[in-house]
Formats: sequence, C-alpha cells, structure tokens
Amino acid sequence: MNYYPDLVERLIQKIVKLPGIGPKSAERIVNYILEENQEEIVALAENLVLLKKEIRLCRRCFNLSESEFCHICSDPERENVLCVVEEAKDLVLIEKSGFRGKYHVLGGRISPLDRVPAGQLKIPQLAERLCKEEILEVIIATNPTAEGEYTAAYLSDMLREKGIPHSRIACGIPVGAEIEYIDSTTLRKSIEGRKKL
Amino acid sequence: MNYYPDLVERLIQKIVKLPGIGPKSAERIVNYILEENQEEIVALAENLVLLKKEIRLCRRCFNLSESEFCHICSDPERENVLCVVEEAKDLVLIEKSGFRGKYHVLGGRISPLDRVPAGQLKIPQLAERLCKEEILEVIIATNPTAEGEYTAAYLSDMLREKGIPHSRIACGIPVGAEIEYIDSTTLRKSIEGRKKL
Repeated sequence: MNYYPDLVERLIQKIVKLPGIGPKSAERIVNYILEENQEEIVALAENLVLLKKEIRLCRRCFNLSESEFCHICSDPERENVLCVVEEAKDLVLIEKSGFRGKYHVLGGRISPLDRVPAGQLKIPQLAERLCKEEILEVIIATNPTAEGEYTAAYLSDMLREKGIPHSRIACGIPVGAEIEYIDSTTLRKSIEGRKKL
Repeated sequence: MNYYPDLVERLIQKIVKLPGIGPKSAERIVNYILEENQEEIVALAENLVLLKKEIRLCRRCFNLSESEFCHICSDPERENVLCVVEEAKDLVLIEKSGFRGKYHVLGGRISPLDRVPAGQLKIPQLAERLCKEEILEVIIATNPTAEGEYTAAYLSDMLREKGIPHSRIACGIPVGAEIEYIDSTTLRKSIEGRKKL
C-alpha cells in the first residue's frame, strides 16, 4: 500500500537504490526536494543527465574526463612516475595526498570469483603505455585486499619481465591510529616494513 | 583545487546539500551514478523534475497530492476524526500506524524564535474546516517538543472556544524500549498518563 502519492513513492524507490541511503533517508531526501525551490532541483536533474552524457574515460589513463585526455594526462609538468590504481576514486585520494606523477586506472581488480580476468581490466593498455612512454617507476597502488594483492602480484610479474622498476605502496598503521585497535596482520606488515632511523 | 572533472565536482556540491549526505557519501553516490546505466539516471532526473511540477498540497488538508484533493480526502470511508500534524511526513507515519480518520497538515509549528505565527500555518484553514465539516473529535498530533506543545496549546484554546472535543497524543515510553534509557521527563509523562488495569 502506498502512503505517498505515486510520484513521491516512485522517487523514494529510486533514491533508496543509491549507496548508503536507507528507506528513512530516502524519505527525508524526497521531503527536502519537495521543499527546495524548483530551479535548484531542475538544475540537479540537468546536472545528472549531463554527467552521464559528458563524462568519459581518458584515452590514455582511463581517469574520468570531460575531454579526450584528462587534466592530469594533459599536464606537462607531471613526473614520469606512474601510479596504478583500481578505480578513479582511488586516483583522487592519492592526488589529494600530494602525489604529482601520472596514473593508470585499471577499472577494477583481477577476481577469479567474480570472473574478472586481467584482460578485462586496462592491463593490456598499461603494457602498451609502458612501451610508448618513458616511465621511470611504476607504483602499484591497488588495495591491500586479497584481490588487490593478487592484481599487484600479476602486475609485478609483468613489470619484472619488462625490466621496469616498480614498487608497492606500504601497509602499516594509519597515522593517528592507536596500536591497541589495529589487527595483527596490519601490525605484522608494519613491523616487516619498518624504517631504519 | 578540483580533483574531479568540473561536471562531477558540481554534482558532488549539489548532492552534499541533501539532508544526511556528507562529502564522502556524495562522492560515493556520484561514482555510483557514473557506473549506473544511462536510462536509470535519466529516469531519476525526469522523476525529480516531474515531482517538483506535479506534487502540490491537497486543497482541503494540505497533504501532498497529485490532484486537487489527496487520496485521503477523496476516500469516503474515513472516520470523522481529524488528526492535526505538523508535516506531511508525520501524516504518513500515523497512517502507517493504522489510523483511518482524516488529517490536517499545519505545514510547521508556531515558533516565536523563527518568527512563525499561527497565521502563517494552515490554522485559519483548520478553523474554516471545523465550521464546514462534521468532525467528532480533533486529535492534536504535533511533536512533543517545546514548539509542538505550544502549538498544541494554541489549538486546544481555539477548539475549546469552538466547543469541539479534542485530545492530545500520549507521551510515554516507546514500545520495546527499556526504562533504564528513558529520560526523566518522558518517564514523568508516562506515569501521569498511566492507564488503570
């Protein structure tokens, strides 16, 4: 049974599909939209449609882009260090941390369970880039999860064969965290990766 | 500095304004939208615009409606008991609880701080309804907050003058809660409102 008018109910059903939104939040958002002025909401709707139309993947690094090449690939000041990430959102976080090299977005991770082979990711395109571009080092920044580590190992094999220097981002205790709350695998990695002072 | 393409950044800025959505959730939602198929998102955008265009307030009770009168006001089977609520979302919750009378949505609460006088709410329209319609009882279901109670007292004075039987929803311990965690004002109300067994 519907308690809201059909239109409202239908929008709630759509909004509840968004990540992190439960039925209660969806209701609150729809109530907010009902109270917000019309221009604001029309602009939001237009922006949604425009986003789907205009945003594509950079032809070189597969980052999100509004043009053929993304703003990072178009930047001549970038160092010749290539950071390989799973998703564009990881790129944004590494960029925010101050890294100023180039990137390559795989578009996922190798997953035997979800049947994602290496060929389905942008790994062939990475191999091609490494032949064409002069890259001094590849930093493998896939997630330290089982599948991310597997992907990292796969990439490491490939890079070793090509004789390209490469590294893996460090695992350890997050800055500001307390040892008391850290799992033992992370602690072990943190001790393995200790730095001489 | 922007880390995402302008279009993406602009949409994040719009989504972060929605209630209960922080910057991180907004990013996640936009990433979801980028991955979702185009038809789904175009439908969402159309629904947003349609909602703003088509949803209005019922001419009688000020509930959300797609037509002149809402589905509750158009229902001939409703009892002649009128439940007065602050917002349409409160109406939905009371409706879900099984109440099958009529409603009147005030569109807020009397607030001296936010300068909302009684005349700015749908209180004159309520007075008018009470003259025209045959109402056996008015249940005042404004929130048990300071402003909601003030509004309830205002309505009670008005109804007493008109000689219309009226009541206030009960305050007490929520079903399933433990007394240990209930504040003392609620407990006091719960004892005051005790029922003889």
